[in-house]
Amino acid sequence: MTRLYDDPHRFTDDMLEGFLDVHRGSVVGVPGGVVRAHQTPADKVAVVVGGGSGHYPAFCGVVGHGFADGAVVGNIFTSPSAEDAYEVGRAAASGAGLLFSTGNYAGDVMNFTLAQKRLADEGVDTRVVFVTDDVASAPVEEKHKRRGIAGDFVVFKVAGAAAEERYDLDGVERVARLANDRTRTLGVAFAGCTMPGADEPLFTVPDRRMGVGLGIHGEPGVGEDELPRAAVLAQRLVEGVLAERPPGSGPKVGAILNGLGTTKYEELFVVWRTVSRLLAEQGLEVVEPEVGELVTSLDMAGCSLTLVYLDDELERLWRAPAQTPAYRKGAAQPSAAPLRSTQHTTLPDAPAATLVPGSEASQRCARVVVAALEAMQGELVGHEEELGRIDAVAGDGDHGRGMAKGISAAVDAAREAVARGSGAATVLGAAGDSWAARAGGTSGVLWGAALRSFGARLSDQAQPAPADVAAAARAGLEAIQRLGEAKPGDKTMVDAFLPFVDALDESLRDGVGLAEAWTGAADLSAEAAVATAALRPRLGRARPLAERSVGTPDAGATSFALCVRAVAPFLATTP
Amino acid sequence: MTRLYDDPHRFTDDMLEGFLDVHRGSVVGVPGGVVRAHQTPADKVAVVVGGGSGHYPAFCGVVGHGFADGAVVGNIFTSPSAEDAYEVGRAAASGAGLLFSTGNYAGDVMNFTLAQKRLADEGVDTRVVFVTDDVASAPVEEKHKRRGIAGDFVVFKVAGAAAEERYDLDGVERVARLANDRTRTLGVAFAGCTMPGADEPLFTVPDRRMGVGLGIHGEPGVGEDELPRAAVLAQRLVEGVLAERPPGSGPKVGAILNGLGTTKYEELFVVWRTVSRLLAEQGLEVVEPEVGELVTSLDMAGCSLTLVYLDDELERLWRAPAQTPAYRKGAAQPSAAPLRSTQHTTLPDAPAATLVPGSEASQRCARVVVAALEAMQGELVGHEEELGRIDAVAGDGDHGRGMAKGISAAVDAAREAVARGSGAATVLGAAGDSWAARAGGTSGVLWGAALRSFGARLSDQAQPAPADVAAAARAGLEAIQRLGEAKPGDKTMVDAFLPFVDALDESLRDGVGLAEAWTGAADLSAEAAVATAALRPRLGRARPLAERSVGTPDAGATSFALCVRAVAPFLATTP
Repeated sequence: MTRLYDDPHRFTDDMLEGFLDVHRGSVVGVPGGVVRAHQTPADKVAVVVGGGSGHYPAFCGVVGHGFADGAVVGNIFTSPSAEDAYEVGRAAASGAGLLFSTGNYAGDVMNFTLAQKRLADEGVDTRVVFVTDDVASAPVEEKHKRRGIAGDFVVFKVAGAAAEERYDLDGVERVARLANDRTRTLGVAFAGCTMPGADEPLFTVPDRRMGVGLGIHGEPGVGEDELPRAAVLAQRLVEGVLAERPPGSGPKVGAILNGLGTTKYEELFVVWRTVSRLLAEQGLEVVEPEVGELVTSLDMAGCSLTLVYLDDELERLWRAPAQTPAYRKGAAQPSAAPLRSTQHTTLPDAPAATLVPGSEASQRCARVVVAALEAMQGELVGHEEELGRIDAVAGDGDHGRGMAKGISAAVDAAREAVARGSGAATVLGAAGDSWAARAGGTSGVLWGAALRSFGARLSDQAQPAPADVAAAARAGLEAIQRLGEAKPGDKTMVDAFLPFVDALDESLRDGVGLAEAWTGAADLSAEAAVATAALRPRLGRARPLAERSVGTPDAGATSFALCVRAVAPFLATTP
Repeated sequence: MTRLYDDPHRFTDDMLEGFLDVHRGSVVGVPGGVVRAHQTPADKVAVVVGGGSGHYPAFCGVVGHGFADGAVVGNIFTSPSAEDAYEVGRAAASGAGLLFSTGNYAGDVMNFTLAQKRLADEGVDTRVVFVTDDVASAPVEEKHKRRGIAGDFVVFKVAGAAAEERYDLDGVERVARLANDRTRTLGVAFAGCTMPGADEPLFTVPDRRMGVGLGIHGEPGVGEDELPRAAVLAQRLVEGVLAERPPGSGPKVGAILNGLGTTKYEELFVVWRTVSRLLAEQGLEVVEPEVGELVTSLDMAGCSLTLVYLDDELERLWRAPAQTPAYRKGAAQPSAAPLRSTQHTTLPDAPAATLVPGSEASQRCARVVVAALEAMQGELVGHEEELGRIDAVAGDGDHGRGMAKGISAAVDAAREAVARGSGAATVLGAAGDSWAARAGGTSGVLWGAALRSFGARLSDQAQPAPADVAAAARAGLEAIQRLGEAKPGDKTMVDAFLPFVDALDESLRDGVGLAEAWTGAADLSAEAAVATAALRPRLGRARPLAERSVGTPDAGATSFALCVRAVAPFLATTP
C-alpha cells in the first residue's frame, strides 16, 4: 500500500516538488505541470503529454530530449484541468505548433480538448491524439472507445522522436495516430493500489486470481481467472494481443512488458522469457523490447504486454535516442572493443586436473562413500520441507532446498569420479567441490569445504583406519570454522558438529568400534541440534534475521545431525 | 507478493534467461552470471560485482560501460558459489587484474574470498572489497561487521568508473575502499517480501509500524516504530545517516533514496522533498541524487537513504557516465537550446480579460449567487466523506474531495468577482472557471462548464426572470452533455440533472413560483439520484470501474442533488 505522504490532499504537489528537486537542470515546474529546462526551439513541434498522476515514470518522468516537451500533471488518477493543460501547452509551445497526447479517459478528453480550443483561439496550432491501445476495454469495432494504458508510452515516444527530428505538426500528428493504430495492449492485475491516505485498496482481486484486461486504475476487463504459471500468463498475453494483428503489418514489433508497481523486475523477466519465444514462433522480430516499470499505478500488482507493429518509419522513431529523468535510450558511449565470441573468457584455460586412479582398496572405500552420500541425499531430500520451515524462522527458508540441491550435485560428482576409478579422497573432493559450486550460499560453501577437507585427510591408496576417519571429521569441522568464523554457542552447524567430533574421538580412544562410536556421536549430535533452540544467536553479518530464531533449533545444526545419522550404517563396512 | 514464476526452483535461471534476451547485444551469460557483450580491453581492470539475486537492478542490471564488467548471480537472496564467482571473474578479467565487490554477508565473503584465491593461484591479480554501509547493522567501532545494502551501488559505481578511466588495480581498489569508508545508509521496512513459490512473506512488520534499520532481506535492525509522516521519516533517515559524518568530510555528498520494491516513485519523491531541505540546512550540497529503485528486495516495502561524502575524485567518479541495462547516466544528447528563464512561456502573453462592472441589480443578484454557492459548499464539504465512499464503489473514491475542492475554489473566485463589482453572469463564469481549473478531473470540467454556461444565459445587467433561470439550468445541462457525451440511463450526473431541468420548466409553465418550482425539482432530482442505484452503467472510457457500481447510486448524480437542494432557499430572494 501507499504509506508515505505528508498531507494526502497535497500528495501530488509534494511529489512534484521532490521530482523537480531531483531532476533540476533537466526539467522545471510550470503551472499545471512540468516542461524541459531548455526552451523549445522555434522550429520544433512541442509534444505535451499528460493525465492523472500515480503512473510514474508516466508522465512527468518522460519529459526530455527525444520524448515529451512537457507533461500536464493531474492529481492521483484524476485528469488535470483544461487550465492546467492550457498552461503547460503555452509554456512548451514555440512557433511550430503543439501536439497534446493523453489516454482516452472522459476527463482527459474533455479537458485537453478545451485546452486545445483555447490555444487555437490564441493562434497556437494544436492537435490532440488520444491513445486507445487497451484491447480489453472495448471491441475492435469500437476502438475509439478504448482506454489508453501502457501504449501511451509508445505513442508519446514516437511523437516525441518525430518532433525531435523536426517533423512538422501534420507529420507529428500523423505518426502519433499511426503508432496508436498499430499499438495493442492487454493487461492483468493481481491486486489493487491504495490511494495516499486511504485505508483500503481502490479495488481487490481475490487471492490466487487475476483480473484479465483490467485498466490501470482497476477499470473492468474481460474477466477473472486463476493466477497461472508465468509461461501460461505469457501465452495468454501474447494470444490476446496478437488476436488483433493489423492487416498488412510486417514482421517487426516493438514490445513493452510493463509492471504496474509491485510485480517486480525478476518476475517480468521470467514472463518475458516465454513471451519472446512465442513471438519468435509467430515469425515476429522484436525490436528493442522494454521490460520494466514504464506506466505504473502506484502499488498495483499486475503487468501488461504491449506490441507496436513497426514499419520502417515507426521503427526508426521507436529506436531513436531519448534522455529523460526516468527513461534513457541510445548509446552514450559506444564500445570500440570487439564482441565476445561464444568462448567468453579472455584468459588462457586453467590447467585440467590430471586423473590419478585409486588403489583397489580405496576404490572399494569410495563406493561406500557414494552409498553413504546417497543415504544423506535420501535423508535431506526427505526433510527438505521441514528444514525449509525451520530456516524460515531465522532466514529465507531455503536451507532445505540448498541442502537437497547440494547433496544431489555431490552424489552425481561422486558417482562420476567412482566410474573413473578414483579413490576415496578424490571422490570426496569432487563431491565437495560440486556441492559448493551447484548449491551456492553459506551452507554450500561450508559443506563443500567440509567434504573436501574430510577427503584430504584420507588417501586414494590405503583403506582408512578408524582414527583416520575421526581425524578427517575433525578436519571437516576445522574447515568450516575457518571459513565461517563461528564459535560454539553461536547457533550454527558448529554446535552439532563439535560434540559429534569430540564424542567420536573419545569413543575411539576408549576402544569402541568405528560404527558404534559414529552412531553414538550421531545421537549426541542430534541432541545438540535440538538444544540449539535455546541459544540466542550471535548477531552480525553471519546470521541474518537470527534474533527471531530463539526457540527454534538451528537449521544447519539440524541438517548436520540428519547427515551423520544417515551415514552411520555404512561405517560398519569399514574395519 | 511474488506471483509470477514457472518452477520456483529455477526462478533465477528463468529470470536470467529473460534478462539476457531483453538486453542481448549489451550483456551475455557465462557460467555463474553475466558479463558485458564486449570484451574487456587488455589494459582495463575488470570490476565484478555480485551476490544473491532478487535485488534488480542490482546486480546484473548494472553491467555495462562505466559500471561493472560482470555480475555473479546467486539464487534469490543466496550467495553465489565460489565456482560461480571464479567463472565470472575469469570471463571478465583481461590483463589488468580483477576487483570483486559484494555486500558483507557470510556466504558472499566466503565464496568470493575462495574465488579470489583460486584466480590468484592462476595468476590473475584479484582483490575483494566488501561493502559495509548499513549503519544499523553494527556499531561504528565494528564497521567491518556491517552489512552492505544500497551503498553497494555507490561502491560499485565508483569502482566501475575508475576502471573505465583506466585506473590500475591498486587505484581501483583504493577508490572502492575510500567510497565504502565514506558511504552510510539507513533503511526502514514496512512489509516483507515473498520468495517465489512461498505462501507467506519472509518476515512481517505490524500494520502501521516500521522496522528501523532492517537489512534488505529483513535482517534485524535497531528497532520498531510507528509509521510516521513522510517528513518525519525523512528527518529520521537524515539524522541517522548524518550521525556518523566522517571527520574531515567536505560539504558535497552523493545521495540515494532507494525504494525496496513496493514503496513507489511518487512516495519517494515526497520523502525526498524533505530530505533535500534538511541536507541543505546542514550545509550539505547534494550532487546528482538518485531517487528510485536501485537495490530492491523483490516486493519488500521500505526505503533507505544513502549518503556518500565526496572529495573531488569521488565526485568525478560519481558523476561519470554509465550505460547499463538498468542504469544510464551522462548526456547522450546535450541540448544546445538556452535554459528557460523563470518566465517559462515562449509565447506572447494572452490578452487579459477586461473587467466590466455589473449593474446594481445584477450585483445584488451576484451576491445571492455567492450565498448560494456558499450553501453548496457547506453541503458538499459536509458530505465529502460520504460522497467519497459512494464513489469508491465504482471509481477511485475522490469524488467528494474533488467536489469540495472545486466548490471552494468557485466560492473564492465568486467572492473576488463580487468584490470587483461584477454582475451575476461574470461571477458565475469566474466561479465555473476556477472550479474546473482547481479541481481537475471529470467532475471539475463538467461543473465548471455547467456554471459557466448557466452564467452565460444570465447577464451582468438585468435581474433574471424565473424563465431565465430555467433556461440557464438547461444550458448548464446541455454543456455537460456536450462535453461528457452521456445519455440518460448511463448512470451519470445527467440522470439527476435532466429530471431537475424538466420539472423546473414544467412547474414554471404551470405558473408555480421559482422558489417552489426549484424546491420541487430538487426533490425529484434527489429521488432520481437514489434511483441511479438500479442502473447498470454504460461501460467504456467514460465510466471506469463502473460495472461494480450496480446497487450503489451514482456519486455525480448524488452530489448534483445535494447542490440543487442547498441552493433552493436562495431562489426566494429573486422575484
